[in-house]
Amino acid sequence: MSVSLFDAFLSTPEMIAAFDDGAVVQAMFRFEETLARAQAAHGLIPDSAARAIAGVCKAPLYDIPALVHASRRAGSLAIPLVKELTAAVALYDKEASTWVHYGSTSQDVIDSAMVLVTREALALLDAGLATLVDTLLALAERHAGTPVLARTLMQPAQVTSFGFKAALWAAPLVRSQAQLKSCAARALQLQLGGAVGTRAVMGAQGAAVARHMADELGLACPAVAWHTQRDEWVRLGLEVAVLTGSLGKIATDLALMAQGEIGELAEPVAVGRGGSSAMPHKRNPVAAMIALAASGRSPHAAANLLGAMGQQHERGLGNWQAELAGWPGLFLSAHGALAALNEAMAGLQVDEARMRANIDALGGLVFGEALAGCIGAVIGRPAAHTMVEELTRSAVAQQRHLAEVASDAVEQDERLRGRIDLARWQALFDLDAAAQPAAALAHEVLRTLRP
Amino acid sequence: MSVSLFDAFLSTPEMIAAFDDGAVVQAMFRFEETLARAQAAHGLIPDSAARAIAGVCKAPLYDIPALVHASRRAGSLAIPLVKELTAAVALYDKEASTWVHYGSTSQDVIDSAMVLVTREALALLDAGLATLVDTLLALAERHAGTPVLARTLMQPAQVTSFGFKAALWAAPLVRSQAQLKSCAARALQLQLGGAVGTRAVMGAQGAAVARHMADELGLACPAVAWHTQRDEWVRLGLEVAVLTGSLGKIATDLALMAQGEIGELAEPVAVGRGGSSAMPHKRNPVAAMIALAASGRSPHAAANLLGAMGQQHERGLGNWQAELAGWPGLFLSAHGALAALNEAMAGLQVDEARMRANIDALGGLVFGEALAGCIGAVIGRPAAHTMVEELTRSAVAQQRHLAEVASDAVEQDERLRGRIDLARWQALFDLDAAAQPAAALAHEVLRTLRP
Amino acid sequence: MSVSLFDAFLSTPEMIAAFDDGAVVQAMFRFEETLARAQAAHGLIPDSAARAIAGVCKAPLYDIPALVHASRRAGSLAIPLVKELTAAVALYDKEASTWVHYGSTSQDVIDSAMVLVTREALALLDAGLATLVDTLLALAERHAGTPVLARTLMQPAQVTSFGFKAALWAAPLVRSQAQLKSCAARALQLQLGGAVGTRAVMGAQGAAVARHMADELGLACPAVAWHTQRDEWVRLGLEVAVLTGSLGKIATDLALMAQGEIGELAEPVAVGRGGSSAMPHKRNPVAAMIALAASGRSPHAAANLLGAMGQQHERGLGNWQAELAGWPGLFLSAHGALAALNEAMAGLQVDEARMRANIDALGGLVFGEALAGCIGAVIGRPAAHTMVEELTRSAVAQQRHLAEVASDAVEQDERLRGRIDLARWQALFDLDAAAQPAAALAHEVLRTLRP
Amino acid sequence: MSVSLFDAFLSTPEMIAAFDDGAVVQAMFRFEETLARAQAAHGLIPDSAARAIAGVCKAPLYDIPALVHASRRAGSLAIPLVKELTAAVALYDKEASTWVHYGSTSQDVIDSAMVLVTREALALLDAGLATLVDTLLALAERHAGTPVLARTLMQPAQVTSFGFKAALWAAPLVRSQAQLKSCAARALQLQLGGAVGTRAVMGAQGAAVARHMADELGLACPAVAWHTQRDEWVRLGLEVAVLTGSLGKIATDLALMAQGEIGELAEPVAVGRGGSSAMPHKRNPVAAMIALAASGRSPHAAANLLGAMGQQHERGLGNWQAELAGWPGLFLSAHGALAALNEAMAGLQVDEARMRANIDALGGLVFGEALAGCIGAVIGRPAAHTMVEELTRSAVAQQRHLAEVASDAVEQDERLRGRIDLARWQALFDLDAAAQPAAALAHEVLRTLRP
Repeated sequence: MSVSLFDAFLSTPEMIAAFDDGAVVQAMFRFEETLARAQAAHGLIPDSAARAIAGVCKAPLYDIPALVHASRRAGSLAIPLVKELTAAVALYDKEASTWVHYGSTSQDVIDSAMVLVTREALALLDAGLATLVDTLLALAERHAGTPVLARTLMQPAQVTSFGFKAALWAAPLVRSQAQLKSCAARALQLQLGGAVGTRAVMGAQGAAVARHMADELGLACPAVAWHTQRDEWVRLGLEVAVLTGSLGKIATDLALMAQGEIGELAEPVAVGRGGSSAMPHKRNPVAAMIALAASGRSPHAAANLLGAMGQQHERGLGNWQAELAGWPGLFLSAHGALAALNEAMAGLQVDEARMRANIDALGGLVFGEALAGCIGAVIGRPAAHTMVEELTRSAVAQQRHLAEVASDAVEQDERLRGRIDLARWQALFDLDAAAQPAAALAHEVLRTLRP
Repeated sequence: MSVSLFDAFLSTPEMIAAFDDGAVVQAMFRFEETLARAQAAHGLIPDSAARAIAGVCKAPLYDIPALVHASRRAGSLAIPLVKELTAAVALYDKEASTWVHYGSTSQDVIDSAMVLVTREALALLDAGLATLVDTLLALAERHAGTPVLARTLMQPAQVTSFGFKAALWAAPLVRSQAQLKSCAARALQLQLGGAVGTRAVMGAQGAAVARHMADELGLACPAVAWHTQRDEWVRLGLEVAVLTGSLGKIATDLALMAQGEIGELAEPVAVGRGGSSAMPHKRNPVAAMIALAASGRSPHAAANLLGAMGQQHERGLGNWQAELAGWPGLFLSAHGALAALNEAMAGLQVDEARMRANIDALGGLVFGEALAGCIGAVIGRPAAHTMVEELTRSAVAQQRHLAEVASDAVEQDERLRGRIDLARWQALFDLDAAAQPAAALAHEVLRTLRP
Repeated sequence: MSVSLFDAFLSTPEMIAAFDDGAVVQAMFRFEETLARAQAAHGLIPDSAARAIAGVCKAPLYDIPALVHASRRAGSLAIPLVKELTAAVALYDKEASTWVHYGSTSQDVIDSAMVLVTREALALLDAGLATLVDTLLALAERHAGTPVLARTLMQPAQVTSFGFKAALWAAPLVRSQAQLKSCAARALQLQLGGAVGTRAVMGAQGAAVARHMADELGLACPAVAWHTQRDEWVRLGLEVAVLTGSLGKIATDLALMAQGEIGELAEPVAVGRGGSSAMPHKRNPVAAMIALAASGRSPHAAANLLGAMGQQHERGLGNWQAELAGWPGLFLSAHGALAALNEAMAGLQVDEARMRANIDALGGLVFGEALAGCIGAVIGRPAAHTMVEELTRSAVAQQRHLAEVASDAVEQDERLRGRIDLARWQALFDLDAAAQPAAALAHEVLRTLRP
Repeated sequence: MSVSLFDAFLSTPEMIAAFDDGAVVQAMFRFEETLARAQAAHGLIPDSAARAIAGVCKAPLYDIPALVHASRRAGSLAIPLVKELTAAVALYDKEASTWVHYGSTSQDVIDSAMVLVTREALALLDAGLATLVDTLLALAERHAGTPVLARTLMQPAQVTSFGFKAALWAAPLVRSQAQLKSCAARALQLQLGGAVGTRAVMGAQGAAVARHMADELGLACPAVAWHTQRDEWVRLGLEVAVLTGSLGKIATDLALMAQGEIGELAEPVAVGRGGSSAMPHKRNPVAAMIALAASGRSPHAAANLLGAMGQQHERGLGNWQAELAGWPGLFLSAHGALAALNEAMAGLQVDEARMRANIDALGGLVFGEALAGCIGAVIGRPAAHTMVEELTRSAVAQQRHLAEVASDAVEQDERLRGRIDLARWQALFDLDAAAQPAAALAHEVLRTLRP
């Protein structure tokens, strides 16, 4: 696939190559060759015809830009391709040339070719996912107990652990690995219906030819063509969009945590990476940027797939074409995001001290809920609630740490003095202790995610 | 759920009721009650507190519009609801009131409530789907051999059977039944993470409380909260959008085949149904209209779900709210479309004579491919191709049926005269014979779809 | 309009009322009444008929839920409404009842009613916009010279002023005010085409009746009906989406600057506003949340409008209905966002000290570009560039302020010692001086925006 | 711009060239050259530097694929481009090389370059629009009185004229011409803000430099940079989407009227155009197909623009990049659709006989409303309504033309016999007479649309 510089920049050379024009055309020839061989095997066309056809089913023999140019007038790339293939076969064997594309139709060859190149695209996603999951699980393991602020509605909330965050980043990716496989098993199927989906020309042999082709191409073989009932194909595309959404969530957190004022994470430093011509001190989170661009675009690409489902009768007018043209974008975005995050996570700079400092800067306010529990055990929950609200207000007003204010208050309160469990009190304001529930859950998630 | 008249008109009273404000609020109370009971069962809160809380967890006790009004300032419906619930408990038991919503957070109760009402919504879809699949399979059976024009790119193509069309309409619906179940099994899960997803307040009992609640509510119990990793939930919504897309495909075909000039299908006649004030002769395809409106809207609702996935940190700002608000629309559309098509298909008027007449009107041109095969068996395929092209041109120019033109030509051609198999020749132009490949596939599909 | 609690929460009671079912139905009656009067004035129907019709064109006389219910079978709300209106007129005057809705069609009354209620909705937006623009311009004025970090790619970049930021927030809103007016002038037009857009029944009087009605309703009067060429209407909806996008930009900045670690802005404190049940120390940016939810949803609502433009022939099937149903959502979101931001901005807490502290925390690195300019004036730009890069690295490595490191370096460098303009040097690292270019632009923008 | 075969097929070589990588890069160099010249003119940089820079601002001197490749790591195409440009200048003039890109930033050069190439793209759209409007107005003129069925909700309704349909197709295109010009005048503006939009480096000369550059490039000059307030730019993109929507409406009608069973319109015949390999009798509406694919895709591209508006602070992270990457698609689709419809409309085959035949086939039912008016003039409207309903039922039941059934009824009805105006009666069922109201409106529209 050829893409503009603004797309190229957000994807990867590997994925661009997977949907390259040459790759699609080669897959179309592979379909035609396999069709001819299967039909010969089942006595529908002469063996010699199949051999003649197979001999010239090679993309490099053809002028691909000319095929694309002709496709506009024809309304389909398959028409000029079949015409040129027929002409090429006829150079050697006039009779054989009449069996080219026999019993098939444009949509059969184009859809099947897209299935074949999509299989390669999925392999790229799968490899990228495996790497990213590994990296994130390792981060989760290493930082299971590293305290970090949890933030809700973009405000500091309480303490969690960075390892727990990383484990939660990984979890949907592991689900995506499984779901992509499951969707692919259903969606990577041969398209073979002939002119209107009935395989009428091939008669009783139709099913056997389809089975033969599917086996040879390593694809699933549906009972009938899926020309205009494309739900399995759409599900596969949507699953890629879900993956991209999950990557966007990671990128969102990464970008937020990499803000200068927060500084808990940074993308790795490398030559030519994330610099700014105007501001040499900057280190831009370019991996997050690429993943956010991907997750910003792919909902619209997904909507395009869904919007194209109302395909008329036995072949859609316009909607099939809109779906095809929009299809690669989902994979380009997803792989761009995956590659970018793999690069970022492999060399991620985790500033544990800054994580602690950001919690400390809140002066203990994040421990209010725990404090109330501790005091409530002595004076009852209603009184404790009221008391902690007052302590919180005092701490803020006096710009003192809540622990200090609370200690003073306990000393001065007859109900509490000497009745608080000191060990528990200590732990109340201890960051590592506060991170323990998250650490435990991180390990729990790791256990479920590890194969 | 309250909806505007323009939405109401495109959905069903049952689905509107499923997402009614009262239903959501009642589900929120059910969550709070179950939470309290589970926490009491595991020793986290007093039994008496759980009983006191449960006693007032009843939506009709509260002023729902006032809750909604207060939610705007609070930023969440849960905040005024918990406040009112706490006040209600406190009327009877001050201590118990401090245990309301203990260890939980707004998102726990709202997400869990949405899960509960969504389960009812899915039951409605499932019932509607079962009926529609039955009706379509019966149509497929009855009309397996009924010839009808297949049309590609909105042009007449060749002959297929109406039963085959109906079977292909049903097939994606059967897949949707299975996929909705599978997605629901994963997505209908308890939300319980506490303030930041760590269940810190409940300590070691957190997992047991969650398991207890999930069992009581009949929901799946994830290892951890899914506050901001909502991929399973999104997949469920997307699956509903896929269903709506498949319904839109049926509606597209129905609307096209019901056009006055085609007249092969008509929606049933009933009092007050599909009339036109200005034009009494019209019978408007209102079921198709409703399903098309649904399939036109739901890709955008799906994009909204995907677009909301980049939820920040431990609770999203704006995107979670956008997702929630857009969620019911997917179900309203889908059930509106299902109900409309169920009504249309139950009384569908199939005009077999018109189907045959529409094929006949093409003067045999749709049989050109078969004719070439028959002639080619005698004079070779290349010569046959050329000959049929000429015959087609003559038939069009002379406005005669291709069969006549071809018969004359065979008589006048020395290579062919007396050498054509007459039985096969007859069958060439026979509609019922032409529909046989489609009929065979229809039966094949029926076999795979029937339980 | 009735909306679900999740929509209500993100909009305003005023806008919900603007699209209320009763308001739409009343607007439909207003159309019917005006139609009858105009036709009587031009001699098409008897005066008595017009009076009889006008007498019962009052929404409270009818059972609106029953109308909505009947609309589902009929395929249009207009059909039961016209039927009930006809019946009501017939109670008094049988002859008059035959003139109800004369020469008109469902789409005329529904579209015109939507135009009328949309005019009210636009007035709400306009009022909200005026307030918000005023508030932002006042902020811009007050803080024209208040230094604040500019951030690019979510990283600290250089110094700008908060007033300049506020002026830039206001600028697109001022453009929206103008564009909404301009779009409304074109889109708020009467719909009157009769059954198929030709006004055939009214013959030569058609144009005069339309003109009469448009004048009475205060709407534009197009030469012909716009039943299926809805581009002006769509432009108006898109303009609302653009407004919401501009509000989303403001909310994005607000949410980012209100993060605990940045703390430059805070939404106002008020009872029941933005609290958290679980975390009493939190102050959630609920206005930003509402505006972000709005700007997250409205691109999809806009896509729905555009996607519905391919309306078939003289009245769309499904797409018209999808457009109508999605229309109010754009206004609900926009007004919700406007109201929320008006509340937030009216009481916005601007922490100037924190703004300065956040710049200071960067140790002067943001002044690197200016420093290079100053040094370059003495030793040439290439040498200065290299030198500043080294100074920056030293400052970071030694955790010293760039000003100190640079002063030392100047002292030790023979080329520079004593040759730097000290006044300029001072100004280099002065925050107020650094904010001056932004301040100047802020005043420039204020001048262009103020009426 | 390089695009995949599936995109190429749906666009035009001219528009693909407008957004070609080389064109964008050349526009970026043009920005850099103009910047240097303007800065020299205002004394900010030496004249010699400006000359040195201008001398190498030529895209063919650079390895564009290598720039694109480097842009991924850098996070922006501008960074490697400026680096290579600086190196090229330094080969000749070390000092001059330090003035490359002076006072500017990546977003300045990229946005301005996109503005420049977009201006070319708009010129292509404008030329295509002018041609299509001319063709449609000529069709409208020629067929102003040609009777054709009007169809509502995809059902035959009443009689209109084909010329009126064509005039209504043209009207939104004329509005698009005006709106595109108006949007372009506001959106085609220079981007020049420097690092954070304050033009701080250029000090007091900033505004003059901007004005100088804008004049030289022929662009509008905004008071300040529009880095993250991109509403005017988005409006321009949306306007292109509106145009595509209007083209989609035309294509919808064309595809429906070209259906075999309707046969009122056909796209022109040409070698290699719209054929089917499997079915030689088919003539596929490939222009409609291309325009429908375009109008199916562009709502999603528009949503992408709107979704990217929430750009953070002084430069967006991910959303700016998503907007840029999605931008060309809107123009590719629109021009593909325009070119296709221009080809189709230039040689459109209008079958007037078929149009009449399709009306005749309805047996006069479309004249029921007019018939009721005629009879009502004698016996009153209520009685006439009832009578026509009965006549309609009889005509359908007896498969006779409504005119015959009505004539018989008039003969047998004492109230009517001899009292009906025969001339008016004749005209009732006359197609040309029935088309007159539409013809009059067609002429009215033509008058308003013609310059």
